[in-house]
Amino acid sequence: MADEISTVMSNCQGKIVLLRLRNTQTIQGTLIDFDIHMNLTLNNAEDISEEKHLSLGKILLRGDNVLAISLPTD
Amino acid sequence: MADEISTVMSNCQGKIVLLRLRNTQTIQGTLIDFDIHMNLTLNNAEDISEEKHLSLGKILLRGDNVLAISLPTD
Amino acid sequence: MADEISTVMSNCQGKIVLLRLRNTQTIQGTLIDFDIHMNLTLNNAEDISEEKHLSLGKILLRGDNVLAISLPTD
Amino acid sequence: MADEISTVMSNCQGKIVLLRLRNTQTIQGTLIDFDIHMNLTLNNAEDISEEKHLSLGKILLRGDNVLAISLPTD
Amino acid sequence: MADEISTVMSNCQGKIVLLRLRNTQTIQGTLIDFDIHMNLTLNNAEDISEEKHLSLGKILLRGDNVLAISLPTD
Amino acid sequence: MADEISTVMSNCQGKIVLLRLRNTQTIQGTLIDFDIHMNLTLNNAEDISEEKHLSLGKILLRGDNVLAISLPTD
Amino acid sequence: MADEISTVMSNCQGKIVLLRLRNTQTIQGTLIDFDIHMNLTLNNAEDISEEKHLSLGKILLRGDNVLAISLPTD
Repeated sequence: MADEISTVMSNCQGKIVLLRLRNTQTIQGTLIDFDIHMNLTLNNAEDISEEKHLSLGKILLRGDNVLAISLPTD
Repeated sequence: MADEISTVMSNCQGKIVLLRLRNTQTIQGTLIDFDIHMNLTLNNAEDISEEKHLSLGKILLRGDNVLAISLPTD
Repeated sequence: MADEISTVMSNCQGKIVLLRLRNTQTIQGTLIDFDIHMNLTLNNAEDISEEKHLSLGKILLRGDNVLAISLPTD
Repeated sequence: MADEISTVMSNCQGKIVLLRLRNTQTIQGTLIDFDIHMNLTLNNAEDISEEKHLSLGKILLRGDNVLAISLPTD
Repeated sequence: MADEISTVMSNCQGKIVLLRLRNTQTIQGTLIDFDIHMNLTLNNAEDISEEKHLSLGKILLRGDNVLAISLPTD
Repeated sequence: MADEISTVMSNCQGKIVLLRLRNTQTIQGTLIDFDIHMNLTLNNAEDISEEKHLSLGKILLRGDNVLAISLPTD
Repeated sequence: MADEISTVMSNCQGKIVLLRLRNTQTIQGTLIDFDIHMNLTLNNAEDISEEKHLSLGKILLRGDNVLAISLPTD
């Protein structure tokens, strides 16, 4: 992840992001931190792929599983 | 992404691009930024794979999911 | 795995972590050590994917199989 | 892509090439540029996998999707 | 494989390890040697995936096929 | 591709080679050139996977699709 | 492939090895040479996956297709 993209991510720290994974799962949580490989730590993460959400707690998600991250726009 | 290709992408910043993904999804949005791994940030992104479009808002898309990007030609 | 993420992992050494793998298996165990590739050593590891848990003992798990790691929150 | 191969590609700039992709799609277009990762930009690209061709316009195709490129023999 | 993990593996040389592979095969054998890519050499290797074990003799197993290695706890 | 292997390939330039691809296709053609990634250029390439051969002309084949190359033995 | 493993392979040059591939094929042949990517050249190679063996002659096999290599124990 190069500098331009890294700045976008930094602006999302402490905010809720929505992760769409390559395996079609959707994960929501508060972004704590990230690194250049797009590895992410999230607080209060939830798997919201199914109607019944599944609480995951605090997680470290490996970046190579990410398809896209929906970012808060403000 | 080497220099020649990077210039092509730079010319598309602020314009609408169409992404064809390896998983056969089609995503449309306004290109904000990109990096050498072809990671992209888009504004007003929409998943237009199905007849009913799905609004995704502002997204960061991981480059290794990209098959091809249709670029504005002007 | 860059520094920010590495610190999060260090704080989990000696604690129980839950690994969700790309192949959908779920592994639980006490984190002994890890490296920058997210290779992990676990004590008392168990495959808890099925209702009947399977004891794996001490294992070294290769990092590129990891989807996400649920971390203890305290 | 090392030098020998790069020269072959340079000789094809401005000419029509046929791309066979790993996902079995066949794309035809005029080669504008390329880089060492085999990322390609094409003008007037068409997906000719099916009998009815699909116009793609100007595209940037990510190199790791390429199986083979049929080159004009001039 | 970084230093911490490498030490764990060194302690297993000459002992019997159990390899769980990404393709779901299970291989057992005496660890002779390994390298930073987790390539392993084993003596008296056996494929124990099925009830009837299959003797493989001395093998070199490529590290990127490994899911996890069960280590002797001595 | 390291030096030892590179020499073997050099000896095949101008000769007919048979490529077995990871997708099970079989391609035959005269080896023009290659690089360290096993990217190959072939003249008079033919897809001979099916009984009816398909002429491909001059192609550049991306190395990561190769399973094995049958080499002339003289 | 690091030094320890490389020595094991060197000792097999001129001897018959058995390759188990990730695609489940089994190839047998006399090891001529290899490189750090586990790319191998074999003489008198045979695909012995099926009861009827298929002669492949002299081949260069790309290392990332290898699951394991059964080595002569001399």
